[in-house]
Amino acid sequence: MSEDISIAEVAEELQNHDNFLILTHKSPDGDTLGCASALTRALQGMGKHARFVNSDEIPEKYAFLYRDIPVEEFEPEYIVAVDIADTTLLGDSLSVYADKVDLCIDHHVSNRRFAKKLHLNPNDGAASLTLYRIFTESGIPITEEMACDLYTGLTTDTGCFRYSNANADAYRAAAGLIECGADNGKINELMFETKPMSYYRLVQRTLSEMRMYCDSKVVVFKITQEMLRETGATEDQCDAICAMSRTIEGVEAGITMKQKTDGRYKFSLRTRESLDASEICRLLGGGGHVRAAGCDAGTEEEEALRTMLEFISGKLQVAI
Amino acid sequence: MSEDISIAEVAEELQNHDNFLILTHKSPDGDTLGCASALTRALQGMGKHARFVNSDEIPEKYAFLYRDIPVEEFEPEYIVAVDIADTTLLGDSLSVYADKVDLCIDHHVSNRRFAKKLHLNPNDGAASLTLYRIFTESGIPITEEMACDLYTGLTTDTGCFRYSNANADAYRAAAGLIECGADNGKINELMFETKPMSYYRLVQRTLSEMRMYCDSKVVVFKITQEMLRETGATEDQCDAICAMSRTIEGVEAGITMKQKTDGRYKFSLRTRESLDASEICRLLGGGGHVRAAGCDAGTEEEEALRTMLEFISGKLQVAI
Repeated sequence: MSEDISIAEVAEELQNHDNFLILTHKSPDGDTLGCASALTRALQGMGKHARFVNSDEIPEKYAFLYRDIPVEEFEPEYIVAVDIADTTLLGDSLSVYADKVDLCIDHHVSNRRFAKKLHLNPNDGAASLTLYRIFTESGIPITEEMACDLYTGLTTDTGCFRYSNANADAYRAAAGLIECGADNGKINELMFETKPMSYYRLVQRTLSEMRMYCDSKVVVFKITQEMLRETGATEDQCDAICAMSRTIEGVEAGITMKQKTDGRYKFSLRTRESLDASEICRLLGGGGHVRAAGCDAGTEEEEALRTMLEFISGKLQVAI
Repeated sequence: MSEDISIAEVAEELQNHDNFLILTHKSPDGDTLGCASALTRALQGMGKHARFVNSDEIPEKYAFLYRDIPVEEFEPEYIVAVDIADTTLLGDSLSVYADKVDLCIDHHVSNRRFAKKLHLNPNDGAASLTLYRIFTESGIPITEEMACDLYTGLTTDTGCFRYSNANADAYRAAAGLIECGADNGKINELMFETKPMSYYRLVQRTLSEMRMYCDSKVVVFKITQEMLRETGATEDQCDAICAMSRTIEGVEAGITMKQKTDGRYKFSLRTRESLDASEICRLLGGGGHVRAAGCDAGTEEEEALRTMLEFISGKLQVAI
């Protein structure tokens, strides 16, 4: 059970220690890496030793975040976790630190309070916003590089300021970061405007086999292992396909049927206001949020789809 | 030739007149409509008569902007143009006002100074930002509806705060507008997350016939009139396809060959830093910007493509 600490207390912790090891979450994203990179730079700027680590390989698109940070060798004395809600997210190679985290800086309301001390702000759309506030309120200067790091975290976790988690604080922090030198146009181009050819191949394949039901209110995408092999697409890219399903005008539910390597299917649902995705997924023993949910559908995927479609057809009062 | 006026002078003009007609530009977008809607509300709130007009039909997606504005009948006395750089943008039915515009509020550096008075801020990513500043600095209260209007203009003109024209002022204004009640999550969903099925059909068709050249550094999309008929896609959607061409990883130039109704082809180019799109389009008598340009390619479109590919192949020093 963590002790909750204020920004002033976080600043004191950083001031009073040296030799920091910063942990990021597995399958690293822009927010955990942006925080780790900015905090490493801040600590090095304060004359401390600091470095950050991850269980997984870091995707190439994030390499610019830490390219010029000096890698320091030292014996870690103080462990900080950034943007990590639970020790399971440390991944295999960092799991050794599960009960050794001195401080966690996070924004997930679901934080499991595993660290000795915790600074949590669940209203923040990104941990980078939480860290930005720590820096500004405790007078830690934000360099151009740190501004790029934090802007990257903020923009990636808010879908380029598109989602409702981009609140007034998030926009105001972005303004501050741009004034500190964050090159927002360039960062967004890098984060959002480049997709591998394999993604477009998968989009083409998926769209060409798309099925519509319930008066075109339900769209079904089916992604088989064969399609993944042929297109070279990755798991990430399946998530993007799933998000795309709901963006079709008039669609109330998008069902993405994805075959796993063992041949079994996983369904991912995205719905608009008229349907509760988690209620639909519960039919097959799954669950999730109101507008995004999932379930396992085994190897009888078409039968499982039929169960869902019958339920949705009843809810929308249209024929399948 | 316009007289440049300050925010205080704009406020005085609004205060000292009544019976305002507000003009928006043809092919109306979120920015011109957001400004018109917010300004109409502001003036009505000041006890004035005001309404806004457009040469074209307003796309359904923007209908929420002005749904609840009372439509007033009165004889216009004072004409304001919002987000209009040139009288040619008034369109046919508003061209009668070309030499009668009393005040223009705009952000285009290319403004042709056709109005009697002009308040222009070319650093603003949207005219909605210019208008936001007018409201805040002259103490005109921003209601929840006005905040939605202005946020819509700001987010659509900056590509949801993605482009580099979203500067610190733009982000800070967004924060202010959210605090005034703009429902940013909902607005962005409406503006950016919904696309007609015809668009996805065109994406599928275009991707399935995509060609790659120059070591996969050049992608070519060809959109025929037959494809447009079969998919039901519109001109707008061709622009989106063209924008997509450059987002493919590793692609330095995206060439979209679009057949017009008369059978002739128009080429649109999008390039990354290594190539100058306008230089390439000049080969065929066209032009444009460094990263986005276009040209007419007649009916011998494959020959025209060859000319471009030969030039690009030389520039990139790879075989076609």
